[in-house]
Amino acid sequence: MILGIDIGGANTKVASEDGKIVELHYIPLWKNTKLPQVLLDIACRLKPEKVGVVITGELADCFPDKEAGLSSIIDAVNNAFSDAYFLDSNGIFTKEKKRSIAAANWMASALLVGGEYKGCIFVDIGSTTTDIIPIQNGIPHAARTDFERLKNSELVYSGVLRTNIAALLKSVNLNGETCGISSELFAISADAYMVLGLISADQYTCDTPDGAGKTIVDAKRRIARVVCADLTEIGESDLLSLANQVMEKQVRDIKEALLTVAKRRHIGKVVACGLGEFLAKKAAEECGFEIILLSEKYGAELSKVFPAFGVAQLLCKYH
Amino acid sequence: MILGIDIGGANTKVASEDGKIVELHYIPLWKNTKLPQVLLDIACRLKPEKVGVVITGELADCFPDKEAGLSSIIDAVNNAFSDAYFLDSNGIFTKEKKRSIAAANWMASALLVGGEYKGCIFVDIGSTTTDIIPIQNGIPHAARTDFERLKNSELVYSGVLRTNIAALLKSVNLNGETCGISSELFAISADAYMVLGLISADQYTCDTPDGAGKTIVDAKRRIARVVCADLTEIGESDLLSLANQVMEKQVRDIKEALLTVAKRRHIGKVVACGLGEFLAKKAAEECGFEIILLSEKYGAELSKVFPAFGVAQLLCKYH
Repeated sequence: MILGIDIGGANTKVASEDGKIVELHYIPLWKNTKLPQVLLDIACRLKPEKVGVVITGELADCFPDKEAGLSSIIDAVNNAFSDAYFLDSNGIFTKEKKRSIAAANWMASALLVGGEYKGCIFVDIGSTTTDIIPIQNGIPHAARTDFERLKNSELVYSGVLRTNIAALLKSVNLNGETCGISSELFAISADAYMVLGLISADQYTCDTPDGAGKTIVDAKRRIARVVCADLTEIGESDLLSLANQVMEKQVRDIKEALLTVAKRRHIGKVVACGLGEFLAKKAAEECGFEIILLSEKYGAELSKVFPAFGVAQLLCKYH
Repeated sequence: MILGIDIGGANTKVASEDGKIVELHYIPLWKNTKLPQVLLDIACRLKPEKVGVVITGELADCFPDKEAGLSSIIDAVNNAFSDAYFLDSNGIFTKEKKRSIAAANWMASALLVGGEYKGCIFVDIGSTTTDIIPIQNGIPHAARTDFERLKNSELVYSGVLRTNIAALLKSVNLNGETCGISSELFAISADAYMVLGLISADQYTCDTPDGAGKTIVDAKRRIARVVCADLTEIGESDLLSLANQVMEKQVRDIKEALLTVAKRRHIGKVVACGLGEFLAKKAAEECGFEIILLSEKYGAELSKVFPAFGVAQLLCKYH
């Protein structure tokens, strides 16, 4: 069995090449050092022949630079698995430590998608970020580093779970009045989608900003703090409105990036995956683009760990 | 001796009524439970007859609501000091636990300033927030809660140390190109001002986002992460430009709020204090307003703990 592993800063995703194994492990690299042990556990439990690996966790701020981050993550993988292949941002597998391995998880997904949909914009909306990858003649055409992709609108650092609401909104409209917001990490996008009923507590697979629970009232308490209020001061309709403005802003940002990339590449079809697929659908529809959801083709679970599935499938074909 | 204490979410400030004692303690309430012990130490060491106290820390997200936050902080004060008086947001001292004690530190400063400058806008730019308080005939006229002050532009949740750069900028201009930014807590305003040479490592009195040091190269590393880069990818001039854009955005936000308040109240004079006085000066000058710096009148140290000094002076007059 061939296993794909996608090691991000916050989440490590695992999928087998046949799609029967799907795992999501919340491992915030900047907070703890669990990754080596979790990889050993996976190796011991699933016993894959080979593993294909993509890495984005090198940006986590526990590492002084990307080289140090890559090196540490690659060592952890090689310590757990005897036969590991790393996909780089040129779509090439390597066993060496190379800088080009950094931030390549989108390449795994986009190569797999490109095999089927020759011309499209591949959109993966995850917990933290949104990849917007133009594919022409089956070939992914995004820039090779996150820094360059941010400039190209091929990366929007906004996701459905971990995004600080203060990074999305500068002010909110409450019942016709403009209200400034707190710049603390008081509430995240997951809180807004909990309150809107668009994600469940099970899908809230990251820490809460205040360390409190994942009930709707906990989420409301966090959202109230965004305007320096508690639940005695702010009403239900203002809370819902605030949560809605979070969603509208995320859709607007993704839509803007989509339009920029679509215009540059002359593509009007979107293929989307990730826990935030529903946002990609909204954004694509507002652009008047055709939208294909990978959850409908592969199932919701695989859609959420698509880079891991992609790298497993690619390694399978490669060998 | 009468002591004033200003207990914020991140900092606890202390000043004696004669201005001879000035202390700043970084005590992030959401992270640790050091406050009761620090207050006991202060009581034991300085032995004040009475203490005047203002509180804003009740919003810290270790507390389920403001009432619980206030109650816990008031208990810690009363446990340490036998004769403590709490100033409320109406400018009245009380020994009772009252909701109106919440978020009243600006009232202490503004009453003191109002005694001297009858008509002005008092601006206190601290580590985390900016208070913009209109004073007419010596009387402060801001709304009584942070939620209402955010709506009135009397509170801008932006400061010179702890503000997440992701909450300030949506994108940056790097050498003519627009670049998106990461929504993580990768760098704070203190990093920008370190890089710009406007604050020293000693003045960086809060935790660094990555737990690393407070040298200029540490700050640069953090700022590079804001655009998903490390120091091998981004040049010196882009880093300086990014830091400058942080300052420009903070000045712009404060200026906008100043203009709103000034227009509503017909006041064109600003009296400023706090570690971020230099930003208030820039904003006021851009508005064409007269600017008075309290650091020039009282010294830089007192200017930084002005609410603590204010409440000490008020208690002195009150008794």
